[in-house]
Amino acid sequence: MASLAAGARGTWHGSMRTLVVAVRARDRPGLFTRIARILHGLGCNLATSLGYRADEEARLLLVAECPLEPEELVAELRTRLREELGEEPEVDAGEIGPDAASIVAEFVREKPGLVTVLEAYLEPPDLFDALLRLPPEARRRVYPLLSPKTLAWILSEAEEEILEEMLHTLSLRQVARALQELDPDEAVDVLQRLPEALRKRLLQELPEEIRREAAKLLRYPPETVGGIMTTSVPVARAEDTVQDVLQLLRRGDYDVTDTVVVVDGEGRFVGLVTVEELLRAPPGEKLSRLARRPPIVIGPEEDREEAARLMLRYELRRLPVVDEQGRFLGLVTIEDVAQVLAEEAAEDIALLGGMEKPRERYRLASVADLVRTRLPWLLLIYVIESLTASVIKGYEDVIERIAVAAAFIPLIMDTGGNVGSQASSMVVRALALGEISERSRSDILYVVLKELATAATIGAIMALLGFIFSYIVGGNTRLAISIALTLFIVVIFADLVGASLPIIARRLGLDPAAISSPFVTTIVDVSVAVIYLSLVAKLVLGL
Amino acid sequence: MASLAAGARGTWHGSMRTLVVAVRARDRPGLFTRIARILHGLGCNLATSLGYRADEEARLLLVAECPLEPEELVAELRTRLREELGEEPEVDAGEIGPDAASIVAEFVREKPGLVTVLEAYLEPPDLFDALLRLPPEARRRVYPLLSPKTLAWILSEAEEEILEEMLHTLSLRQVARALQELDPDEAVDVLQRLPEALRKRLLQELPEEIRREAAKLLRYPPETVGGIMTTSVPVARAEDTVQDVLQLLRRGDYDVTDTVVVVDGEGRFVGLVTVEELLRAPPGEKLSRLARRPPIVIGPEEDREEAARLMLRYELRRLPVVDEQGRFLGLVTIEDVAQVLAEEAAEDIALLGGMEKPRERYRLASVADLVRTRLPWLLLIYVIESLTASVIKGYEDVIERIAVAAAFIPLIMDTGGNVGSQASSMVVRALALGEISERSRSDILYVVLKELATAATIGAIMALLGFIFSYIVGGNTRLAISIALTLFIVVIFADLVGASLPIIARRLGLDPAAISSPFVTTIVDVSVAVIYLSLVAKLVLGL
Repeated sequence: MASLAAGARGTWHGSMRTLVVAVRARDRPGLFTRIARILHGLGCNLATSLGYRADEEARLLLVAECPLEPEELVAELRTRLREELGEEPEVDAGEIGPDAASIVAEFVREKPGLVTVLEAYLEPPDLFDALLRLPPEARRRVYPLLSPKTLAWILSEAEEEILEEMLHTLSLRQVARALQELDPDEAVDVLQRLPEALRKRLLQELPEEIRREAAKLLRYPPETVGGIMTTSVPVARAEDTVQDVLQLLRRGDYDVTDTVVVVDGEGRFVGLVTVEELLRAPPGEKLSRLARRPPIVIGPEEDREEAARLMLRYELRRLPVVDEQGRFLGLVTIEDVAQVLAEEAAEDIALLGGMEKPRERYRLASVADLVRTRLPWLLLIYVIESLTASVIKGYEDVIERIAVAAAFIPLIMDTGGNVGSQASSMVVRALALGEISERSRSDILYVVLKELATAATIGAIMALLGFIFSYIVGGNTRLAISIALTLFIVVIFADLVGASLPIIARRLGLDPAAISSPFVTTIVDVSVAVIYLSLVAKLVLGL
Repeated sequence: MASLAAGARGTWHGSMRTLVVAVRARDRPGLFTRIARILHGLGCNLATSLGYRADEEARLLLVAECPLEPEELVAELRTRLREELGEEPEVDAGEIGPDAASIVAEFVREKPGLVTVLEAYLEPPDLFDALLRLPPEARRRVYPLLSPKTLAWILSEAEEEILEEMLHTLSLRQVARALQELDPDEAVDVLQRLPEALRKRLLQELPEEIRREAAKLLRYPPETVGGIMTTSVPVARAEDTVQDVLQLLRRGDYDVTDTVVVVDGEGRFVGLVTVEELLRAPPGEKLSRLARRPPIVIGPEEDREEAARLMLRYELRRLPVVDEQGRFLGLVTIEDVAQVLAEEAAEDIALLGGMEKPRERYRLASVADLVRTRLPWLLLIYVIESLTASVIKGYEDVIERIAVAAAFIPLIMDTGGNVGSQASSMVVRALALGEISERSRSDILYVVLKELATAATIGAIMALLGFIFSYIVGGNTRLAISIALTLFIVVIFADLVGASLPIIARRLGLDPAAISSPFVTTIVDVSVAVIYLSLVAKLVLGL
């Protein structure tokens, strides 16, 4: 459990969790004091309490650090209040974060004005999680009340839907004020998502300095290296001294503050110096003597995933971005990379789940949106699977004569599908780790031979099991032989298909995860139908 | 394309890629000069060349920055050498990194001694990729030749198999020397993977300071926060001045150099100060006035994934780790988090592919290892799917009477399986983003209702399509109605199952990705068999 460190909220203690507690009870004098006393008795430190009265009822929202699980607290609070008040009030509690979001949302929906107080106790993501649980009208009432810091966070995280809501309720100046809280590259990401007319008007509200940065960055799409690089970086010349640069760091307001970029007279990248090295070097030392070249640099149009891959591979914290002439443009930081990795992981999960990454958050997507996201894949698979149905239909006479043969079709198809997706994940991982290159012929040959050997072993085991099981269920030796043979062939075939698809995808410049699972399933299913039913026809029925 | 910045290797130019080129030709005087001239003519800068002579043949390995794709270079070099020499030499080339690894491996296999030169031109991961492509005997000959820096990198990255190879070929002192090149937390990760006796002997070879750090860290398993935290951090007291701390930074050799941790007299965590803030503050200022508390701190036994999630959520670069009494233990850095995210993504891909994350690299795993990794899942699914087979077998008489009914079973199962895994990925993502909490009853109700509405819509569409398609193929209205009805029911059922599994997994403290896809498939398959075939029996055959 992570505990919120209580900045303004008293001393932090280990093993505590910060809870949000909601109480609804008949209003009476001293109610709050009793609750506070009970919480104190349970070992909690009360950070804040907000409350209001409605229809004879008191509604309280408390933030407290407690040595209890939320459920324990609710039970205790309920029992003790019943003992003291003679009635059982409504109590709810959740750990700060997503667990407490619906409690906070309920409260904000009834009294939007209280967000201004809550902002001091909830971090922007916690507040935003509560807002996401509100109906749009309620959310619109809240935006104008929020601080620029919270607004900035929401702007940078929010999907189109939220962005639109905000732009309709906030003044241009409020939005501009919030944008200034962001790093230039984040502000530009927001600007890029706006309609051009609005973007221009907003740019005019921004200070000259940010406008200049924005102009530089607006050229690069968000999924490129240029789209995630940071330009707010201390840059010095090779002939500058350590003293000069320390002066520069003291004056400037940069997003990267632990590294100084060294360039030559024409702005070409020379190397990096860490602040640690600056602190240790003699004040008169020239930067040219300290600057070190990282093992790689990258161009601004490259895929941001490539930057992430390279920085992880070579364990770099800062990757310089340079243009074709070697001029320094910006730095990709490991912070940016962590963000990219998290987003790409979400994308992969969506792809492996058989759909495009949804454009919006689940909470904001209407049912129609969800259907639109999910249906295309389903239809595609459906159409291809219709082929399987037609193939099986072609063997109608076989099935008519030996109906039990049909019982084993799903089993064989599933085994093949699983083998295929196992082989795919193996190869995706080996590609990601650089163990095989999709462009090296000897590497590909290696994969094919290794997979052949593995699949033949697995196939033999599955065939044996398939024989035994189907003989027990079906009681027909020839059918059992057909099943065993099909399993053996299909396991090898599915494995090779599954292993090849990621390599082919990479060679075509596609995301290997995009192409694998559903395709393997489909290819396997059709081939199972053909191989199995013709074997049954031949071996069992002698057709 | 990322270009290697040429440190000692001449000036770096934009739009160049660093290539490794191998040439085999009949040995003759002036051969190398010709090749160098051709490369120069193609716009390449030669960084280095290594060569040796064997059986009248010259074998050359060159590293060069070229404005060409490897394939283009190979073609050009071949043509021009043929023109000049009257014979066509063997030429191969690949971009530095995985693409070139098999070329380098071939060279090192023949002349292991050359790695000492190659080390100056290849980063450790590039060299390691080549080593992975060697047979174990050849690899064993190389280890003793490598520098401590390269050995350190391999030790920290290597799986058990490689670790064992290294420990058998290197002296204890060589390993200890390499470990000192690593950050303490990385060194401890290596130590934790060693047998206890060996670990103790190695610890004795290490300097006192590292031994002390190691003792602190060895308590925490690698997948906990304690296992990834960095302890080599500048720590100062609240009453220290800015001047004192700058002095501390100048003297010390820390892994985190951009942040100073401030603690009180009892070592309890007070806050963080960035070096930037130190540079700007008056030299006599007390740290207590500068220290800022991050919004959260974390305990050392927490899951490292939880630290990653929180740092991304609250956009933190350094997360303090404290014990139950609030004493400072170490920092989790965003660099650590990037590594964790990459590893977890690999794990998720393996899980979604239907297997445990393999313990070893693909290259190192024998066929038997691969079979062992993959077979358990396949058998599990096979056993459960046998249930499907038995269920279908129970409807043998139905299928016998209307064999065409069997043709549609895979189609319906696949549709259900896909709907289920879509719903799973949606919910996994919403959980990860904090849009829903697995512990909030109102959030779960929200998901159920939204999924019901979505699934009913999708189900209706699929049912309609199913009716049309199966009527065309089967020509039987009642069969088509059975199929449509089954599709409608199965889509809703599969969706709800798929959506619930990640929530249940999280409540049980399991990884949601671990439980989803294959389970959904299996549950769906069995229910399709029952629902569909009993509907066919009733509606079509009137049984």
